[in-house]
Amino acid sequence: MSDLWSELEQRFPGIVTRDRAELMEYGRDFTRVHAPDPSALALPRTTEDVSAILAFCNEHGLPVVPSGGRTGLSGGAVAAKGELVLSLARMRRMDPVDTVGNTVRVQAGAITEAVHAHCEPHGLTWPVDFASKGSSQVGGNIATNAGGVKVIRYGLTRQWVLGLQVVLANGQVLELGGALEKNNTGADLRQLFIGSEGTLGVITEATLKLSRRPGKLDVFLFAVDDLAAVLHLFREVKQTPYLISAYEFFTQPCLERLTRHRAVRPPFGTPSPFYVLLELEGAPSTDALEPWLSSLFERGLVTDGTLAQHSSEAAALWQLREGISESLSATGLPHKNDVALPIASLESFCAEFERVFTARYPGLEICLFGHIGDGNLHVNVMKPDAVSKEEFLRDAKKRDLDLFAVVRAHRGSISAEHGIGLLKKDYLHFTRSPEEMALLRGIKGVFDPKGILNPGKVID
Amino acid sequence: MSDLWSELEQRFPGIVTRDRAELMEYGRDFTRVHAPDPSALALPRTTEDVSAILAFCNEHGLPVVPSGGRTGLSGGAVAAKGELVLSLARMRRMDPVDTVGNTVRVQAGAITEAVHAHCEPHGLTWPVDFASKGSSQVGGNIATNAGGVKVIRYGLTRQWVLGLQVVLANGQVLELGGALEKNNTGADLRQLFIGSEGTLGVITEATLKLSRRPGKLDVFLFAVDDLAAVLHLFREVKQTPYLISAYEFFTQPCLERLTRHRAVRPPFGTPSPFYVLLELEGAPSTDALEPWLSSLFERGLVTDGTLAQHSSEAAALWQLREGISESLSATGLPHKNDVALPIASLESFCAEFERVFTARYPGLEICLFGHIGDGNLHVNVMKPDAVSKEEFLRDAKKRDLDLFAVVRAHRGSISAEHGIGLLKKDYLHFTRSPEEMALLRGIKGVFDPKGILNPGKVID
Repeated sequence: MSDLWSELEQRFPGIVTRDRAELMEYGRDFTRVHAPDPSALALPRTTEDVSAILAFCNEHGLPVVPSGGRTGLSGGAVAAKGELVLSLARMRRMDPVDTVGNTVRVQAGAITEAVHAHCEPHGLTWPVDFASKGSSQVGGNIATNAGGVKVIRYGLTRQWVLGLQVVLANGQVLELGGALEKNNTGADLRQLFIGSEGTLGVITEATLKLSRRPGKLDVFLFAVDDLAAVLHLFREVKQTPYLISAYEFFTQPCLERLTRHRAVRPPFGTPSPFYVLLELEGAPSTDALEPWLSSLFERGLVTDGTLAQHSSEAAALWQLREGISESLSATGLPHKNDVALPIASLESFCAEFERVFTARYPGLEICLFGHIGDGNLHVNVMKPDAVSKEEFLRDAKKRDLDLFAVVRAHRGSISAEHGIGLLKKDYLHFTRSPEEMALLRGIKGVFDPKGILNPGKVID
Repeated sequence: MSDLWSELEQRFPGIVTRDRAELMEYGRDFTRVHAPDPSALALPRTTEDVSAILAFCNEHGLPVVPSGGRTGLSGGAVAAKGELVLSLARMRRMDPVDTVGNTVRVQAGAITEAVHAHCEPHGLTWPVDFASKGSSQVGGNIATNAGGVKVIRYGLTRQWVLGLQVVLANGQVLELGGALEKNNTGADLRQLFIGSEGTLGVITEATLKLSRRPGKLDVFLFAVDDLAAVLHLFREVKQTPYLISAYEFFTQPCLERLTRHRAVRPPFGTPSPFYVLLELEGAPSTDALEPWLSSLFERGLVTDGTLAQHSSEAAALWQLREGISESLSATGLPHKNDVALPIASLESFCAEFERVFTARYPGLEICLFGHIGDGNLHVNVMKPDAVSKEEFLRDAKKRDLDLFAVVRAHRGSISAEHGIGLLKKDYLHFTRSPEEMALLRGIKGVFDPKGILNPGKVID
């Protein structure tokens, strides 16, 4: 096979490299569980390059890992088994913004934040927004159907993709959908590529649907006593005439680690078991929201609360929520999970999860936060000081099985937005039935009969 | 095969019938091109019934046409070749509305309007809305990814489906998604069933995502000189701080037939080549919109315009748009097409379409209307009095080829929302490439290897 890699390198000079340092860098994503070990790296400039490279790999059965900004959290872009990393990083072209249809066509390697900047002068945005937007790429966002903090307002990435250009394993180029809002001409193949983590084809270009940039946003932080109060407040917020652009929550253990790690003061005088960050769009003025805030106090719906009076206060409140992930890693070793539940089942899920974990794993520190308005919980179990890293990670697998059993019992998903990749593959059966997995394998066989695209990811 | 139909009837007493009158009724949809000729009709009460019936048909290779409210316009639910019609009409259960997660689970046979009524007391709605909502069913809406007049505000049916229960051709029952907003666990199989017109499986239940009922709506009617002005006005409307809940257009020939058919007065003193119906959501009061309306006159963006002052005026304006389809059929014989274009290409498309048709088919009356804010045009060619019906329909096929060639040249779709079914099957290649069609066939083979589900629809 070594000869084939050499041949590939010779056929695509300046595009394919086997430089060791580059391979180590491009062979991994944000996860650090698997050591990178790719055989080669390709940095194509055009769709034609991608097509020619894939045709060569398909002919010779060479495995390929499609690669974006490598900000994924489930190992979907890790090349640990001698694959070719096919990076879209050089394909960053952005066409002029179409201000009639509110669309823009970009190459897959365009950086999320660059797309935002490209659209901003026209009063438009691509409302896919999350912490790693400075390095994540459009193609990777689409291939993983990325979520984030604004899903409650705008939905997942899936909703903001009009057209896709995709290269199949055999090098065939598909143009799917273009700039069309409507196209009911049989099964919609775009939808299969969105969220399939590079196992069915390589996304090379996309026509993105754009949204008007939001108007004035108002940010609240609330303290409440329990999860029931978080959900009760959610129902209350839905009665306002405004748009909910974020409804996030976190618990006191998250806040404690954040204040320990950063120069941040607790938001309220008294600690509270639960905190809610609410962002509303469309209020005529911040003052106009004060009576509503007062009424929440009066009716006992919150134990404390604050409404940001200007943008720096709003940013400070957001920092309490967005800083959590980094602070958990900076102050300890978290074992992360990203689960989704039907919103109506969140309370019973959390009660049973607490019961099971308190009984089986007493004394564990659990940091719970996330996009609760979408039913999405980030469950972080922190390593106790007295336990070694090895023991902690070994036990984590056992605990995951318990967590996922509770998730399944409540008809939830073991991966809300992070995907399956390598890290969750062994647990896929908690969310997908044997019949579904058989269909997924059948579809894989149709799109990639030789199985060269991201082998071993999502499903075997 | 006759013995098999008898056996099916005996195995499912009270569910399967071969009554001729019933077969004629259930064997057709809103199209009248193909004569119905089903062999049997099944009216299952439960998912288990559907599963058992499909398992029997799959074992014996009996063809099955899944059937909803039969309001389709492309023959997707027509049983013209001795099939079993599998109607979901008896499966109308609606579970209690989940007011925490804003979802409701219903059986596929629930009528669209009944779902609206079921959700209304909770201030919620399933925002899938079109003229045939009084008889269309949820399962059929999903299987065809139905559109309508509110797509610009809410998107297609696809956006309002959280979970699906689907029975495969072999009788296997899939539960996909449930009440989850987020579930990134590999390719999303739900998306394949949405819009696949009953060729991949039979939808038996769905968990619907609900929206808050809209607030105050304001309806305008405008007169403008040409399509460029329609699109210029569209850009202007997008600058207002309000939500666009409809942006529809029609031409003078549409209005002439409407006023001839119904007791309706023209909206303005002088006829105009183009009319735009605009519905806005979120204005604090109707009065608050008057200055904006005046500014449109002052800046010459419209030649005439009116703003409904109360709900009966708004309904009267809507009638001008919604009555068109019926008035065309009542005053003549229209040959209908339902095409979509990138919004940015609408003007050049219409110019070329007019050029081609004026040159090749001079004197034809063409009634153009539709959801122009979605790039969706309903193109209706009216039969001239001097031409026989037979000649007109024969020539229609030739004209369709010319129309679709212009659609293709502008990267449009030959079916925006009506689907492919039987009527557009021969033209599918104008929108889908040979590579795509090969993938569609491959997927069909995975889901329905014996090809019993809606054979001959969409693709062979």
